[in-house]
Amino acid sequence: MSRPIITLTTDFGVDSHYVAQMKGAMLSVNPDVYIVDMTHGIPAQDIRQGALTLREATGVFPEETIHVAVVDPGVGTSRKLVYVEFEDCRVVCPDNGLLSQLCLARRPRLIIALTESRFWRPIVSSTFHGRDIMGPVAAHLTAGVAPRELGPELETLHDLQWPVAKVDQRMIQGTIVSFDSYGNLITDITMKILKPALQNQGLTIHCNNRQIDGLASTYGSAQEGELVALIGSSSLLELAVVNGNAVSQMGASVGDEVSVHW
Amino acid sequence: MSRPIITLTTDFGVDSHYVAQMKGAMLSVNPDVYIVDMTHGIPAQDIRQGALTLREATGVFPEETIHVAVVDPGVGTSRKLVYVEFEDCRVVCPDNGLLSQLCLARRPRLIIALTESRFWRPIVSSTFHGRDIMGPVAAHLTAGVAPRELGPELETLHDLQWPVAKVDQRMIQGTIVSFDSYGNLITDITMKILKPALQNQGLTIHCNNRQIDGLASTYGSAQEGELVALIGSSSLLELAVVNGNAVSQMGASVGDEVSVHW
Amino acid sequence: MSRPIITLTTDFGVDSHYVAQMKGAMLSVNPDVYIVDMTHGIPAQDIRQGALTLREATGVFPEETIHVAVVDPGVGTSRKLVYVEFEDCRVVCPDNGLLSQLCLARRPRLIIALTESRFWRPIVSSTFHGRDIMGPVAAHLTAGVAPRELGPELETLHDLQWPVAKVDQRMIQGTIVSFDSYGNLITDITMKILKPALQNQGLTIHCNNRQIDGLASTYGSAQEGELVALIGSSSLLELAVVNGNAVSQMGASVGDEVSVHW
Repeated sequence: MSRPIITLTTDFGVDSHYVAQMKGAMLSVNPDVYIVDMTHGIPAQDIRQGALTLREATGVFPEETIHVAVVDPGVGTSRKLVYVEFEDCRVVCPDNGLLSQLCLARRPRLIIALTESRFWRPIVSSTFHGRDIMGPVAAHLTAGVAPRELGPELETLHDLQWPVAKVDQRMIQGTIVSFDSYGNLITDITMKILKPALQNQGLTIHCNNRQIDGLASTYGSAQEGELVALIGSSSLLELAVVNGNAVSQMGASVGDEVSVHW
Repeated sequence: MSRPIITLTTDFGVDSHYVAQMKGAMLSVNPDVYIVDMTHGIPAQDIRQGALTLREATGVFPEETIHVAVVDPGVGTSRKLVYVEFEDCRVVCPDNGLLSQLCLARRPRLIIALTESRFWRPIVSSTFHGRDIMGPVAAHLTAGVAPRELGPELETLHDLQWPVAKVDQRMIQGTIVSFDSYGNLITDITMKILKPALQNQGLTIHCNNRQIDGLASTYGSAQEGELVALIGSSSLLELAVVNGNAVSQMGASVGDEVSVHW
Repeated sequence: MSRPIITLTTDFGVDSHYVAQMKGAMLSVNPDVYIVDMTHGIPAQDIRQGALTLREATGVFPEETIHVAVVDPGVGTSRKLVYVEFEDCRVVCPDNGLLSQLCLARRPRLIIALTESRFWRPIVSSTFHGRDIMGPVAAHLTAGVAPRELGPELETLHDLQWPVAKVDQRMIQGTIVSFDSYGNLITDITMKILKPALQNQGLTIHCNNRQIDGLASTYGSAQEGELVALIGSSSLLELAVVNGNAVSQMGASVGDEVSVHW
């Protein structure tokens, strides 16, 4: 077997020593694990952004990777901690909706509640279960512990519903769901939903009183400063300003509406 | 022996290529070392925050881990560089007070001054001893060099005194020493100091003209927006706003006074 | 052979999950590679800062390290992607000038255009070649693929010219090229260019209507708050404020002129 890999997705902030504490706790269980920082920049307690990141990034990793996600406003309350196995990835996280985006396209094949405390740190705080429970459990998994040893199987996950893009005759109604470090605006309009629109000419995209005609193939295919729409690297409709920043140019924010007409 | 681990605690800023230069220098000495970023977000030249981070995070790592800490305003002057071994952790850092918090609870069992230049980079700059001395020395330690080869033994460390929380009859007087990425305020009031207060009813906490009655068990155990006090994951008294940010709600900053009455 | 190492230099922002996606793509090709984050804080699409970082940091790593640099405003357009081998380092990046600073002091001994798509991800987006082409190619190189398998050899690289420091009789005219996390201002005036000046007494440095007399040996060798000039850890002339921030004290920015007189 290859070297085991754990990824971390948290809202700790990259400068926080909470990150190091989780790593230390995992390395204390399995000193040979290779830890990859996915991101520690999920906005504090923003479960939806955590869920989006898990959907974007998990698919690129080797399938046996354990992805640990800690966005956990309910730490210490009755929310469950879970190990969830999909066909193409494995996640350890609180059962608070963090998996809702991953679940849109795939069904879990195994859900286990983390109840067996022999796989936790000996002393468990009431405020940091990433370090005291989730991290150590993930490390035990990479060291050969079978998922079913961690606790009882569950039937379902806590489901958080978010608005999804809708097709309405010759129009798609979607939303800005996030933006990236270049100021590109990412929508929830997938390539699949866009298909009927793409078969037509005269497609237009509307957002915050701006209209964009047609899709660009890539950022550099239009003039500097121009606002373009394109299919981004996650197969989602994006709005971007060539060599510029669409967030600041459009004054746009997460939750703004985007529509496509044809 | 397991794969050797080095952690890094610096004030370089996470975006700085100084971080990469230190890693490169260590990997050039021992290409098999596993480097863990503790944090690079210590405020520039803030020895106290560095000392607090070392105290928080070192205890979670495997004991043979080498922790390298570079907050070094005196680089190139007469301050010493040291290797210090405690019962449960090993640190390489400037002798400028960075270990003062770790030393509150434990005594060094070995202090070595780094004087043997054969374990340094061949050319040593006068401004970057993290890359040129401390990093390479740490990597040599993980490759099997014995601590006593690095230089002569020292008897004592440079001691930086900071105010500590004090118990005064039915009152504890402490200070905000740091805050985390959620805006939680961390104090220097330990669980141990709090013990007499906890045996009483009617405990109140005071900070910046706000009063909190009693301790919460965890962040999610009160109403959203409520200001609570609780024992955090480092066994220190914390002030937090449920699903909010205590730093901005209270206008508090490091150094503000906190008192506990009972 | 030791464990293979890949470094990443990008403008993704450290909080971006693009970083994780690149890592996942590389680990899917070679699960044993060790990935070192150089920096993800290159300002968006700032090729020059990327080029400066590559020059500063590559020299410190083991020579067989593969350095991947993704600052790629032309992604999806006709710009080439290349593997470039120097005597002391190997880089995978877009051919857009990112190597122009490295090339100032050394000549490439091999330039290969990345055209062989069997070393790419099966599906290549038009906007994220770091994940889909450069990352996987770098991972294949660490797994034993020979550079010449990646595509045809090229003769030259795209050259981006930037102003360079000039000596003019008893004066050197240079520029602030970057600043670091301490607020130190880094110039393009090298130790080598400075040599004639250093052999003289009465050397003065001028920048933004401030004059500095002579060179300090290190940051701590002058009074707190004093503005000093010194040779930094990259053998470049730097301006610094002792225990302070030269950027804010001088209101200086990248591109400002610096002159040395003697």
